[in-house]
Amino acid sequence: MDTKVINVQADFPILNQQVNDERLVYLDNAATAQKPLVVTESLDKFYHTDNANVHRGVHTLAERATAAYEAARSKVKNFINANEAAEVIFTKGTTDGLNMLASTYGEQNIHEGDEIVISIMEHHSNLIPWQQLAIRKHATLKYIGLTAEGELDLVDAAAKITNRTKIVSIAHASNVMGTINPIKELANLAHEVGAIIIVDGAQAIPHIAVDVQKLDVDFYAFSGHKMMGPTGIGVLYGKHELLDQMNPYQFGGEMIDFVYQQKSTWTQLPWKFEAGTQNIAGAIGLGTAVDYLTDIGMESVAQHEQQIVDYLLPKLVADDAIEVYGPKNPQKHSGVIAFNLKGIHPHDLATALDMEGVAVRAGHHCAQPLMEYLGVVATARASFYLYNTKEDVDSFLNALTETKEFFNHGTSKAK
Amino acid sequence: MDTKVINVQADFPILNQQVNDERLVYLDNAATAQKPLVVTESLDKFYHTDNANVHRGVHTLAERATAAYEAARSKVKNFINANEAAEVIFTKGTTDGLNMLASTYGEQNIHEGDEIVISIMEHHSNLIPWQQLAIRKHATLKYIGLTAEGELDLVDAAAKITNRTKIVSIAHASNVMGTINPIKELANLAHEVGAIIIVDGAQAIPHIAVDVQKLDVDFYAFSGHKMMGPTGIGVLYGKHELLDQMNPYQFGGEMIDFVYQQKSTWTQLPWKFEAGTQNIAGAIGLGTAVDYLTDIGMESVAQHEQQIVDYLLPKLVADDAIEVYGPKNPQKHSGVIAFNLKGIHPHDLATALDMEGVAVRAGHHCAQPLMEYLGVVATARASFYLYNTKEDVDSFLNALTETKEFFNHGTSKAK
Repeated sequence: MDTKVINVQADFPILNQQVNDERLVYLDNAATAQKPLVVTESLDKFYHTDNANVHRGVHTLAERATAAYEAARSKVKNFINANEAAEVIFTKGTTDGLNMLASTYGEQNIHEGDEIVISIMEHHSNLIPWQQLAIRKHATLKYIGLTAEGELDLVDAAAKITNRTKIVSIAHASNVMGTINPIKELANLAHEVGAIIIVDGAQAIPHIAVDVQKLDVDFYAFSGHKMMGPTGIGVLYGKHELLDQMNPYQFGGEMIDFVYQQKSTWTQLPWKFEAGTQNIAGAIGLGTAVDYLTDIGMESVAQHEQQIVDYLLPKLVADDAIEVYGPKNPQKHSGVIAFNLKGIHPHDLATALDMEGVAVRAGHHCAQPLMEYLGVVATARASFYLYNTKEDVDSFLNALTETKEFFNHGTSKAK
Repeated sequence: MDTKVINVQADFPILNQQVNDERLVYLDNAATAQKPLVVTESLDKFYHTDNANVHRGVHTLAERATAAYEAARSKVKNFINANEAAEVIFTKGTTDGLNMLASTYGEQNIHEGDEIVISIMEHHSNLIPWQQLAIRKHATLKYIGLTAEGELDLVDAAAKITNRTKIVSIAHASNVMGTINPIKELANLAHEVGAIIIVDGAQAIPHIAVDVQKLDVDFYAFSGHKMMGPTGIGVLYGKHELLDQMNPYQFGGEMIDFVYQQKSTWTQLPWKFEAGTQNIAGAIGLGTAVDYLTDIGMESVAQHEQQIVDYLLPKLVADDAIEVYGPKNPQKHSGVIAFNLKGIHPHDLATALDMEGVAVRAGHHCAQPLMEYLGVVATARASFYLYNTKEDVDSFLNALTETKEFFNHGTSKAK
């Protein structure tokens, strides 16, 4: 399963280090991804060759910076197959995009008695904005539950999505259980009742090919930093006619047409939603990450991660000492695996694994309602990306075994 | 006036280039500043050594990333002399911070009949958020005018700030005219009537020493990219007790204490206002820019720019072909100079200057109400920073002269 298409050592210098005297095995990719050298090189090149503010200048650097920024937008447009670049709004990240939607589309279209439907596996960022909107508007927030297998319950979805539903907002892939949700089917359910569908794509777009037109989603939000781009940049895709109807989220700078003392009018898409100086270098770096992923091919990325899951998940599921949350079928699973070592707090587990050089998360993963639903306080989580190798998986399994032995017998590992 | 404390050529590679076969003279610093090498080196170091998501992990990289991110906050705290690091909220930039305030403090505290006072010299980012808030709340937005000298009219300020005033929001330095406003006096006027004062510090903090406690401001918003930090990062300073009373602006991620299906509670400052993954690398890069400025000393920075203004401004004012907007007294002036060459559209002027390698802005500078107040559609604007030299000023003056001759006589420059 080792990735042939990338040179991990050359492209990802951060992975060539030891942590606690062990080779670093970075399995925290659902939190953030590592960046290939080309991404930081593109930041350096921009800052030391072309840096200027965009859209407002006629001088050479401003023109170069504007061209680079808008070229990044076009790269994203092609990556997600949006119909036009104007449907690609640069944001700070997924959370920013989802909050923007709740504060604009939600504020404009949700009224007393309306229903918003999300799922019980949502990250807080795709939960609290809708919860607070529902509270403000005296609307109802409904949760789609899970099947016994840890997948989204489509029967429940069909029951929860009714004529009162105005917004369905669902994660494309769970940041905890690795569940991949059937977005196209959910889009159909939403559209049949006249609702829109919003997708939290943070955990999907780094890992699988996403075609927003084929999925027929109305909005799709994601973050750059989880797909090997810089921090502080993200994207909100939206259908042109919906974005057009939306009020601006923030005011100031170049999102205007005319500003008078007591009223203002707004400019066209996408700039209506980009108030103030944006993360120009961040967008350019994200464009480079998109190029990097496109060169590899998202099918290859997905296939590589599928091979990791095919190899690892059955081993974890077969281990009586380990509880795995979410689908047990590798074919239904992204490279995000939540688990617990029975009798050991996940924080202690993560700390023990860190002593072996293995970086995993432990906690509620910003999904407290899911934790409650699963009947746990917290879990450990290992999450993989295209630079992870079979060697990484074996190191992780070895570290798990040593941790089990340590906690069972109180003895240190024999090296 | 040449800066002795920095090595411009070594620190700012972008300035070592030719534009249109002329040495680049970058005079668009009010739009964005150039970045010293140490800033991009700190980004590279973070991404290739420590990159991880913050606050949520127990593994080594997450701990290192969290330490670096919070260290950046402390650097900013010291730079502005905040009382505590919890008063430093990382934002996307000034516009983000001001919109946050209008949507939280403003939404909570402005009611029908209340008054918000700004000035006629505000950037759109410190104007439209208050204008739209006033519209939503049926409140009144009032504008402090200018003196004949282009300074804020303090008599008018005292008249406009009344017992009905709840918010006074003012630029520390004008992004057009270079006017530096007497924030401490305005803070006193605001506090005397029980109002708060918010300061748009975008054009001040890169150039002069700012002590938020001495100024006694309630909020102070600024951008990293104008002070040689990365794009996509900014700061909102606020007094602890005011931030504490404010509702969160965005929801999701780690800004929570507990999330239930139908309600949530929030965590403490500053994280209550940092929903979702922040621009971690951007904050760290801003911290490096703060270090760079601190090493030079803000007094030296201010002194250097004052020398440029002392040298340049009288020459422009004395030229009958040139109209200068704003204060004519160099002592009342920051390194931002708005001007027009009579009879020539500022865009044509900026284009002509660009042919000489000189980068200036032309337009309304996101201050349309000010343009209307000044009776112009647009101006050219030259803005200086610590790396600009006497040679830059002379190149600018020469290019101005050549442009005048070209437009007067239709002849190309003699080289």
